[in-house]
Amino acid sequence: MKWRIVKGEKKDAMRFFELLKQNAVFLFAIGNTRTAEIPGITVAGANPDLIRYTPPADVELLCYGKCRSIDAIPATPDGKPTPALITYTAIRLTKVPFFVVDSGLMVKPKTPHISIGAPVGGNIKDGAAMSVDEVKESFERAKKLGEQMSKLADVLIIGESIPAGTATAGAVLRAFGVKAAVSSSMPSNPVELKRSVIESAVKRVRSDDVFEVISEVGDPVMVGVAGIACGSSKPVLLAGGTQMAAIAHIIKRIDEGRDISIATTVYVAEDDTADIAEISPVTVVAADPGLADSAKPGLRAYAEGFVKEGVGAGGATLLAYARGLSKQEFLKEVEGDYERIVELA
Amino acid sequence: MKWRIVKGEKKDAMRFFELLKQNAVFLFAIGNTRTAEIPGITVAGANPDLIRYTPPADVELLCYGKCRSIDAIPATPDGKPTPALITYTAIRLTKVPFFVVDSGLMVKPKTPHISIGAPVGGNIKDGAAMSVDEVKESFERAKKLGEQMSKLADVLIIGESIPAGTATAGAVLRAFGVKAAVSSSMPSNPVELKRSVIESAVKRVRSDDVFEVISEVGDPVMVGVAGIACGSSKPVLLAGGTQMAAIAHIIKRIDEGRDISIATTVYVAEDDTADIAEISPVTVVAADPGLADSAKPGLRAYAEGFVKEGVGAGGATLLAYARGLSKQEFLKEVEGDYERIVELA
Repeated sequence: MKWRIVKGEKKDAMRFFELLKQNAVFLFAIGNTRTAEIPGITVAGANPDLIRYTPPADVELLCYGKCRSIDAIPATPDGKPTPALITYTAIRLTKVPFFVVDSGLMVKPKTPHISIGAPVGGNIKDGAAMSVDEVKESFERAKKLGEQMSKLADVLIIGESIPAGTATAGAVLRAFGVKAAVSSSMPSNPVELKRSVIESAVKRVRSDDVFEVISEVGDPVMVGVAGIACGSSKPVLLAGGTQMAAIAHIIKRIDEGRDISIATTVYVAEDDTADIAEISPVTVVAADPGLADSAKPGLRAYAEGFVKEGVGAGGATLLAYARGLSKQEFLKEVEGDYERIVELA
Repeated sequence: MKWRIVKGEKKDAMRFFELLKQNAVFLFAIGNTRTAEIPGITVAGANPDLIRYTPPADVELLCYGKCRSIDAIPATPDGKPTPALITYTAIRLTKVPFFVVDSGLMVKPKTPHISIGAPVGGNIKDGAAMSVDEVKESFERAKKLGEQMSKLADVLIIGESIPAGTATAGAVLRAFGVKAAVSSSMPSNPVELKRSVIESAVKRVRSDDVFEVISEVGDPVMVGVAGIACGSSKPVLLAGGTQMAAIAHIIKRIDEGRDISIATTVYVAEDDTADIAEISPVTVVAADPGLADSAKPGLRAYAEGFVKEGVGAGGATLLAYARGLSKQEFLKEVEGDYERIVELA
């Protein structure tokens, strides 16, 4: 099985799968939240100092097949590689046009990137992530971007990269009253730590207004993704896990009629600590990159609950399948890229 | 007559005109050179302090129908409005997707914009505009951008906004050994002043290498436009006057086989102080926005030798004609926008 429906009607899932055979544009909204500076909350970086470089390095990998802001590709402290690796393979094979959106970066990537004027997000444990004005301004600019990009495509796919993004996603979901734990890039999802951060953050929320909630406990990547989706004149596939589920709630609260779905990996769909089907307000499909069968331990780790998703890996895998690649072919290509980029580097 | 061939074969000109009926993407590479700080060299701003705001304000006008970084739209000291006004009308009517490229801005626009990491250009009278490394890095990023954008279109159109860009264009042309005076946004083209700036700048050029020449006497917008054009897998229409002629030389020196043409306004084509047909190494067509017949003095001024071109106005007019607008319709729409944006503001 290449992919399956996790939530929603078959006809909706199939419609999005068919759309991926047409003109697609892949956008990567990347940014930072200082929430990632809480010790132990994320492993999206080989050490705490490198976490801030993970988003730019991820998109440098997509653009050049290697990173430029750091020497090696982003990895967890024990060496599990970034899911951008899977996305890179899918982009390379499908030749899908892609663009990077600076959605609040600490370090700009050494690639072309689109600014929407988003600030770096504050640590939600300590105070508001952004001002409401900042959220609204970046949202409006992202809408303009979505408006223009969607003229060129039949479907927009949006991926993300923001360390600790599952923590801010959890806070937004909680503020919206969605009962949900959140996924993580760690198999031993640091549930207690996240819960305490989320609790103390959500206590400050005094309003039901979506922009107020994001400004208090969200992050700038949410603003970019939601803005692009709300500006798009075409269907939008949100490529990610629980973060995209939180963003789907945001989008639906802003504009109920938006035509959006979520594509993630089977590793998120199988995560017992966070039920994406329960959390998501929209159709969810899960693609299987087949890494359980990989000869490479670094890739097999994904199927064992590490990393699981990110940088649009699930949506990128789905795209590769929609464009005709078999599961075996795709895995072989991912492994080839892994050898060149990780093992021989 | 809506447009005419100024240089080149009819079949080439017609091929580009037909391409404009298909999927086009309009890119605006905007930036600054400190050369604009030389008193009297440019009128692209109501006063010297406002010159730096002209490029961001131009694209804000395109994006929102009004400026946000400054109160009124960019204008000359005596009130002639920016040619972005014409481009705005064409974009509004054709709904062509467009993107802003930050090609070395002092002030970022309050719109989405794509960064290629270009620096602000130095004053070429005093020293090098940029380092060779900066030029090469920005060029490579712009190439990547052109590569992605061209996947989405049948033709790329590139316009520019950079005060004093005709001075740096003149210096690059001189350094390449192209005998040419350059156009200007003033009817009394300050030929002597520009000549002396160009002379002293070009004296420093010690190499024939295109990147060395740009770094010494060019500007960052040249780098962005040339990079996008060199990365494109589709034909590229350079929308502008003598600046685009200089950039066409740059592109041809980097990659002789590039499929590029220039579209400008008849006001540039009729400029006696700068012979675009003589200067350009590629096909040139000139569109007539019909402003000579306008009831508005601010628009009629274009036909009297003021402003003449900029922000892709000639190419935008050609696009409007390719998409079926008559000269009368287009002028009426430009006048309507002028009333709303300039007269009623």
